[in-house]
Amino acid sequence: MAARTGAAGTEAADRVMPLASGPPPSRVVISEVQPIVEGGRYPAKRVQGDHVEISAVVCADGHDELGVRALHRQSGRGWAAVPMTRAVNDRWSTSVCVRDLGMHEFMIEAWIDDAATWESRIERKRLAGIDTHLDEAESARLVAPTTHHVRSEVHQLLVDRPLAGFSAWYELFPRSTVDGTARHATLRDTVGRLGHVADLGFDIVYLPPIHPIGRTARKGPDNALEAGPHDVGSPWAIGAPEGGHTTVHPSLGTDADVALLVREAAARGLEVALDLAFQCSPDHPWIDEHPEWFAFRADGTVAYAENPPKQYQDIVPFHFDTEAWPQLWEALADVVRHWRRLGVRVFRVDNPHTKPFPFWEWLIGEMKREDPGLIFLAEAFARPAVMTRLAKVGFTQSYTHFPWQHAPWQLEQYSTMLTAAENIEYLRSNAWPATPDILTHELQQGIRPVFVERLVLAATLSASYGIYGPAYELMESVARPGAEEYAHNEKYELRSWDLDAPGSLREEIRRINTIRRTHRALHHDRGLHFHHVDNDRLLVFSKTAPAREHSISADVHDDPVMVVVNTDHWNTQGGTVRIDRAALGATGWDHIEAHDLWGAGETYRWEGDHAFVRLDPSVSPVHVLRLRPAPADDEVDRLP
Amino acid sequence: MAARTGAAGTEAADRVMPLASGPPPSRVVISEVQPIVEGGRYPAKRVQGDHVEISAVVCADGHDELGVRALHRQSGRGWAAVPMTRAVNDRWSTSVCVRDLGMHEFMIEAWIDDAATWESRIERKRLAGIDTHLDEAESARLVAPTTHHVRSEVHQLLVDRPLAGFSAWYELFPRSTVDGTARHATLRDTVGRLGHVADLGFDIVYLPPIHPIGRTARKGPDNALEAGPHDVGSPWAIGAPEGGHTTVHPSLGTDADVALLVREAAARGLEVALDLAFQCSPDHPWIDEHPEWFAFRADGTVAYAENPPKQYQDIVPFHFDTEAWPQLWEALADVVRHWRRLGVRVFRVDNPHTKPFPFWEWLIGEMKREDPGLIFLAEAFARPAVMTRLAKVGFTQSYTHFPWQHAPWQLEQYSTMLTAAENIEYLRSNAWPATPDILTHELQQGIRPVFVERLVLAATLSASYGIYGPAYELMESVARPGAEEYAHNEKYELRSWDLDAPGSLREEIRRINTIRRTHRALHHDRGLHFHHVDNDRLLVFSKTAPAREHSISADVHDDPVMVVVNTDHWNTQGGTVRIDRAALGATGWDHIEAHDLWGAGETYRWEGDHAFVRLDPSVSPVHVLRLRPAPADDEVDRLP
Repeated sequence: MAARTGAAGTEAADRVMPLASGPPPSRVVISEVQPIVEGGRYPAKRVQGDHVEISAVVCADGHDELGVRALHRQSGRGWAAVPMTRAVNDRWSTSVCVRDLGMHEFMIEAWIDDAATWESRIERKRLAGIDTHLDEAESARLVAPTTHHVRSEVHQLLVDRPLAGFSAWYELFPRSTVDGTARHATLRDTVGRLGHVADLGFDIVYLPPIHPIGRTARKGPDNALEAGPHDVGSPWAIGAPEGGHTTVHPSLGTDADVALLVREAAARGLEVALDLAFQCSPDHPWIDEHPEWFAFRADGTVAYAENPPKQYQDIVPFHFDTEAWPQLWEALADVVRHWRRLGVRVFRVDNPHTKPFPFWEWLIGEMKREDPGLIFLAEAFARPAVMTRLAKVGFTQSYTHFPWQHAPWQLEQYSTMLTAAENIEYLRSNAWPATPDILTHELQQGIRPVFVERLVLAATLSASYGIYGPAYELMESVARPGAEEYAHNEKYELRSWDLDAPGSLREEIRRINTIRRTHRALHHDRGLHFHHVDNDRLLVFSKTAPAREHSISADVHDDPVMVVVNTDHWNTQGGTVRIDRAALGATGWDHIEAHDLWGAGETYRWEGDHAFVRLDPSVSPVHVLRLRPAPADDEVDRLP
Repeated sequence: MAARTGAAGTEAADRVMPLASGPPPSRVVISEVQPIVEGGRYPAKRVQGDHVEISAVVCADGHDELGVRALHRQSGRGWAAVPMTRAVNDRWSTSVCVRDLGMHEFMIEAWIDDAATWESRIERKRLAGIDTHLDEAESARLVAPTTHHVRSEVHQLLVDRPLAGFSAWYELFPRSTVDGTARHATLRDTVGRLGHVADLGFDIVYLPPIHPIGRTARKGPDNALEAGPHDVGSPWAIGAPEGGHTTVHPSLGTDADVALLVREAAARGLEVALDLAFQCSPDHPWIDEHPEWFAFRADGTVAYAENPPKQYQDIVPFHFDTEAWPQLWEALADVVRHWRRLGVRVFRVDNPHTKPFPFWEWLIGEMKREDPGLIFLAEAFARPAVMTRLAKVGFTQSYTHFPWQHAPWQLEQYSTMLTAAENIEYLRSNAWPATPDILTHELQQGIRPVFVERLVLAATLSASYGIYGPAYELMESVARPGAEEYAHNEKYELRSWDLDAPGSLREEIRRINTIRRTHRALHHDRGLHFHHVDNDRLLVFSKTAPAREHSISADVHDDPVMVVVNTDHWNTQGGTVRIDRAALGATGWDHIEAHDLWGAGETYRWEGDHAFVRLDPSVSPVHVLRLRPAPADDEVDRLP
């Protein structure tokens, strides 16, 4: 992995020293450098093309003029210097555009500018009519016009592909990609589904594990403990005599089919994401070949996974405490390398919170050293300390607890936490309304306003989001009794889907993905802001686009986007929004033209700082409003 | 100075390593250690007897049981271990009582507790009726019941005398301590003033510089550029042929008189604070003896202080950029040592923000290594970055911008900033309503409610405060025209005071100092909390006492104290306070008995979470309320 340049928090650790010969220690102090994560222990994250605001508090004693600059480089290249300017309260800042993929470095350098100090002093004296001939005579003394140089620690910035920051995911089970039949589909069948996924506007098609599935303790339909002879088993029970983590399930196809799928996806603007589920079925070849990578019980059997009272007899975890851990780690790295060689650059990682943090830090660091374009999504539905730690150690994106945030106050509080303070520097949330493991009680109602609301919330609150299709498209809502899990779950059985069934959400999905692509405000989560509304069933938030140097395309707009959601799925709700114009960058606008990109495309004109909104969920549970300035004398039609 | 154990932020920096033999890197992560300052670069501060809450976020992957403990020691002694318990969201904490003066160290150690994990698993299985015979057979494997040990960085805690955290200062000019005459008073005269200061309830009597005063460019009365032959000059223009920073002004006395003053003060429960003003008059002996410590102009004259258009011809700054800086630093340390040998352990430091931060870090560190009971108060009316930096590098207390916070919202915002987040760990504010340099326009009104209000605010908002007496006692309010400075300022002339003049604030000062001493809630600033009141001329705040092991004295109470201030000095103002019971630790109280320690000693009984308050400034501009629980069926008299 990349060498860590360590331990800031201590900026300029050499500032204080015992009395010795040489010049005195620098009078200049650099502190509170931004952006850093955990005092510099981990890199802040950005994507190519981002403008990174670098800043620090810089001060010295007395009244001397300071000079401050940022030094920036992609690791291994030369340093480029950028002057910094003083903002408020001794914070100095500048902006740097990061274009190259991979690890960047920056540091801050500051000094006392003796020449500027001299000039300032002489100028102030002249203004006050004070004699300056001595000062002029002393100009010759300014042989070293800068002194007291000091540098911050070197900090890291990890620059990913834009897809790492803005992405729409579509999950499908490749074995269920032929419609109208019970046949086990193949990866070649899955190629036939790519056009549909691309047409909906997604960026990534994610496949659950595609490897041979164990027979021992195989689960039957609906998670039954016993499988029948024809039951296909869970793809997460990886490994059978045919092979393990680097083998394609024979019923799905071959390595060549994976490469084909990747190529065909690329031709449609899609990337393929594979699942990294680092666990084994009891039939995985490694259990015989590398028993040292597993734990064995007192009776000589291999230890399966358990978290009593839960027991997972079909899953054998790796024994990460093994003395042979370096070989195990390398073997797991080779799994990633295998699929990368076939063109896969995006990985969804199953349950990373049950494997050691140092393993992930090493694995992801090593893999991204080999290909800095790799993307790793952490499926860590874990406690905040664990979720954030996984993001710090290297995961590119993180599933979040979005599915369980329902009320407006929950959504606001949770999204605010995700984007607060230091979190926004390294945690990129990826919101899923549902997954094969999660069908919330809210969705189990099976009504359209809920599915539309959760789709729009996920796709606008979070720059990255995903749906479990086709189940979500078709509003699949029947749960296994007593569980937040689908009945007839694809995890355990083949399913046949009718994508053309009436009532599909196809149009809504296509529309929200189009809105996302064409509005830069939705391409990141930094501009997220919640606006007060006097009805606690309504949620109102906005996003704004960051500055950019060039226009990307005529089809991509920089306007702020405001989303209004009625979380009451049965009744019309209305309320008055207190528009925070500062958060919208709209303080200088006379009025606001709010054009609904959703629904029937109404345009509203808002005067002042308040707007009345009303949503009838039977018509539409959401507004997705593009905001533009409207002149004071504008005569736009006002709709009720 | 004490070696800095550097650079946290990175906790457990050795966690990630290249693949190698040996055990795998620890699965346990320690982060967000508290209390630390600037990522561990500077020590957090406490006083003897404080209970320090030490905490950190500790987590590992998976479901194993963790063990966490704090290791704590006074520097140079052995480590004592204290178990930590899990609080909320993976934060573990414990409390340690610090008794010894000086630098302490702590770190956090965590591990996976294999025995506890085994016990928890077997217990959960038994409860679920799952067979455990294999688990029981495996108990013998638990040869090393703890694994994956990891330690945080070592962090520092600076433990001062209680006086560092809680102190009342009284400033007086020793040359003006004989009443009713124009004679230049002596330190022996000042001994005669000690009884008065002690009677008022102060802890520290602070003297401006007591050294010989320069004649060159001496200032006359009211800061006149020319002094007459009998003008005494500013004590801050230090140095004359008689001596410099280690010499007593001949008209004041001798070193022996300083020692006498210190002893006589101690006999009355007072400490003497001297002024450290590291600057010279043009007549300071060092200018001849050590020209290398000063800057010289192109014409060969020594450079006086200037910050154009301001020029200070009577003040010559040290040239801290001199190559002879180690000798200069040592000479200034010897100044401190000189007065310390005479018994002085408290120093008020003049304008520290015009001398290098590394100098202060070295000087204070070195001096406190020699005597950890020393106290240094920074007179740094500087920008927040500079004020906080001086506190970080070692100053024990800091003057603040309290004099210029007038409106309730200003007082709340400023006090909240001072006590927020990390600031409370190292910044100890010392609030002064006035100083010889500061007579605010508010005080210039010369009316009693203002003087009482500012006295009570300073003494209750801030655990340390001071007054410039006798000017404040006697409500001196006449300013030099156009300035926020006293007319006939003692800085430039002898003054005679009539301490027994009618209208003196003696009673109010004595009363507030008594309330401070007898209420632990006022002994620190951690418990400060502002309560909402629906009248923006009123300010309401409370303080609560931290937990303690033993009672200190029957006269010292642990009750919360609530202060209500009417900032309208001309009109009665009333309003309803929303009592934040949680902040008061009063959630379990039926009702609240509020007894006014100020005014006529009324007792109110407050039911619920709201209380009506009203203050007529002509009677009293403040309530200082001691809060106690009152039973629901109490029948306390209710006063209107």
